[in-house]
Amino acid sequence: QIDHFGFDENLTFQQRYLVADQHWNKENGPILFYTGNEGDITWFCNNTGFMWDVAEELNAMLVFAEHRYYGESLPFGNESFSDSKHLNYLTSEQALADFAVLIEYLKTTIAGARYSPVIAIGGSYGGMLAAWFRMKYPHVVVGALAASAPIWQFGDLVPCGAYFSIVTNDFKKSGTGCSESIRNSWNAINHLSSTDAGLQWLSSAFHLCSPLKNLQDAAILKNWLSETWVNLAMVNYPYKADFLQPLPAWPVQEVCKFLKDPTLSDKLLLQNVFQAVNLYYNYSGEASCLDMSETATKNLGQLGWYYQACTEMVMPMCTDGVNDMFEPQKWDFDALSEECYRLWGVRPRPSWLLSMYGGKNISSYSNIVFSNGGLDPWSAGGVTQNITDSLVAIVIPDGAHHLDLRSRNPLDPKSVQQARALEISYMKQWI
Amino acid sequence: QIDHFGFDENLTFQQRYLVADQHWNKENGPILFYTGNEGDITWFCNNTGFMWDVAEELNAMLVFAEHRYYGESLPFGNESFSDSKHLNYLTSEQALADFAVLIEYLKTTIAGARYSPVIAIGGSYGGMLAAWFRMKYPHVVVGALAASAPIWQFGDLVPCGAYFSIVTNDFKKSGTGCSESIRNSWNAINHLSSTDAGLQWLSSAFHLCSPLKNLQDAAILKNWLSETWVNLAMVNYPYKADFLQPLPAWPVQEVCKFLKDPTLSDKLLLQNVFQAVNLYYNYSGEASCLDMSETATKNLGQLGWYYQACTEMVMPMCTDGVNDMFEPQKWDFDALSEECYRLWGVRPRPSWLLSMYGGKNISSYSNIVFSNGGLDPWSAGGVTQNITDSLVAIVIPDGAHHLDLRSRNPLDPKSVQQARALEISYMKQWI
Repeated sequence: QIDHFGFDENLTFQQRYLVADQHWNKENGPILFYTGNEGDITWFCNNTGFMWDVAEELNAMLVFAEHRYYGESLPFGNESFSDSKHLNYLTSEQALADFAVLIEYLKTTIAGARYSPVIAIGGSYGGMLAAWFRMKYPHVVVGALAASAPIWQFGDLVPCGAYFSIVTNDFKKSGTGCSESIRNSWNAINHLSSTDAGLQWLSSAFHLCSPLKNLQDAAILKNWLSETWVNLAMVNYPYKADFLQPLPAWPVQEVCKFLKDPTLSDKLLLQNVFQAVNLYYNYSGEASCLDMSETATKNLGQLGWYYQACTEMVMPMCTDGVNDMFEPQKWDFDALSEECYRLWGVRPRPSWLLSMYGGKNISSYSNIVFSNGGLDPWSAGGVTQNITDSLVAIVIPDGAHHLDLRSRNPLDPKSVQQARALEISYMKQWI
Repeated sequence: QIDHFGFDENLTFQQRYLVADQHWNKENGPILFYTGNEGDITWFCNNTGFMWDVAEELNAMLVFAEHRYYGESLPFGNESFSDSKHLNYLTSEQALADFAVLIEYLKTTIAGARYSPVIAIGGSYGGMLAAWFRMKYPHVVVGALAASAPIWQFGDLVPCGAYFSIVTNDFKKSGTGCSESIRNSWNAINHLSSTDAGLQWLSSAFHLCSPLKNLQDAAILKNWLSETWVNLAMVNYPYKADFLQPLPAWPVQEVCKFLKDPTLSDKLLLQNVFQAVNLYYNYSGEASCLDMSETATKNLGQLGWYYQACTEMVMPMCTDGVNDMFEPQKWDFDALSEECYRLWGVRPRPSWLLSMYGGKNISSYSNIVFSNGGLDPWSAGGVTQNITDSLVAIVIPDGAHHLDLRSRNPLDPKSVQQARALEISYMKQWI
């Protein structure tokens, strides 16, 4: 059903979902239901090894449901992103309704699943969906594991600068001079980009696929670098991994090896910065140049997510250059709103999400485990303290972005092993 | 906001609400919030005296919120019912979102209300909304009193015939021969309507404003009579009242005084039936003829409700003439669907409400009191047994449709007095 909340648009669409039942107890064994987020579901499926590990222990069926407007689940096919009319059904509420209807369908069509307890599991935006799913549809899911879910990164629930100061701390802890080098790099870029020769130098120093032509391009370079540092913090995993990009173990430490001396001259400093980002974008060594239009895996649906950020999912962010290593930038809602109107013809409605999902006032809900990694910038908007006996927080000090959802690994820190054990014990309580 | 669940239609509309704060404790005293149903809010306000009685006891503010598409709260003014595009935002989910946003607005604009606990109260469809509001927005309301709310009159949650068999029981208990007279009346009408002379006789015997011309008209007569009996059962109050129509105390007993002998000849029987319905439609004695196009107060929004019954609110009903006094009629979903498509261009989606609000599987929700009257046909789809410690049922054996929400009256049976006392004690627990 394309529109669950209205009856004028009566079309339906094909939603993709993946099922794995090799460990399932066919007499109403539990179902672990991944609430798909903003990307291709097969990619999430392959990066959520925890569920596969748990399936065996709980004799559970795994279901990975793709979020509408991502991957192959496009309500209007190629037209899905053509205008605000077609995008109108891209909301978290519609996605949750998809999940509820899908589970009802699975329970009535799979023999032995009629009374299966269902647990929602998700990471990041998918973690928010898992939590919200339990909140809004407790008759469908007995509990939820919301990993690295920044459900409070909205309105003024948390300081807008917390996110970037966590990124900064990751770099600060990962090598002497590292965060200072990055903080100093912005002015170095500003100096160089004030002349054509400087722009040319920057283009070749950063091996950019398309050279910088003006100050606007230089701003794009800075944004791209910022996003790179943020992404590195998110995927600062203790072992070689390929989530947003193929990377070595503890990649922030690796890049910080290039960024030890913040006092270098502009050009030397920036050459080091290039070495650092080159590790992120070109760990394989195969890239002939770096493309600023991409910062992460193609499996994420950038377009759809940008629309969501322009409507419901308004997350205030800011930097001050003091508590963080970034150029100071205030949160500017009006600019966002104008940009959204220009791009999609829509205006964000930031208060709606708070009315819908309760903001911080959620103690009347139950059976949700919120896990957060201490290294993960998204933990800034996460639930990191217990709210009630059944709304519990698990903090993984050495964890980056939903490390706990990844497969077991010999290099896993103790804290994530303990977190997973605790998560499993809650799941056992629920089913 | 006309559409809470999408961003393409960004228009807003004026929602009417009434506030009474003369008893309110201005330092975060509680708010009793009436979740308006399918009609003019001033009329509900005037028929929900219980809230006024309680306001004093709890030092509470009263808010009566009008449901979108009813009364004066028309999203598109006179165009609101013009087609399925304009009607597209008439759903229970949008109405609940209106309530959530309105409460947020009141709490931020009324001094001293920021931390006021809010209790949702409603009757009938408004009672369903009150229950669903607590279920979906427990961060907004601490509890709900759902009076005569048939939240299970959907899908196959209850037998489709239960509703009409309760109506029948009311008549059976209210006078010897009463339900039998009505059961026999259908064939009497069928006999007479087979000839033109008979149709003419029926038209004049029932003082109809527009005479019957054919069998179709005779079917309308029978429907109109059926609805009349149903309405009488709903408003079978122990004192003179004017809810759907001005009526004496225990009106079913009053009409049954005309219906003592089911063995009379067709014409004599139907003359008695006329006396009975004339009491309902013409208690004032002022009507010169009876109009079959209306069965109840004009304060209800028939058009909007019919649209809702054609979309989300699909309530299966049936009769068999054995367990009830009506002509046998199977539940015919396909016929409804065709009729809805013909009228509005929409098809009902009966499973959605069950997915959304959980059907019978609601034990994970909390703080809802379901009250039902034993005389009320809607109790067939109501919650009449406790589900958990905090989802409790109160049955009022001598009560008709949400009698408990009406003002205190010297003629109130003990059972409704006890029910109200219990309801108040739950409210005190919540706040």
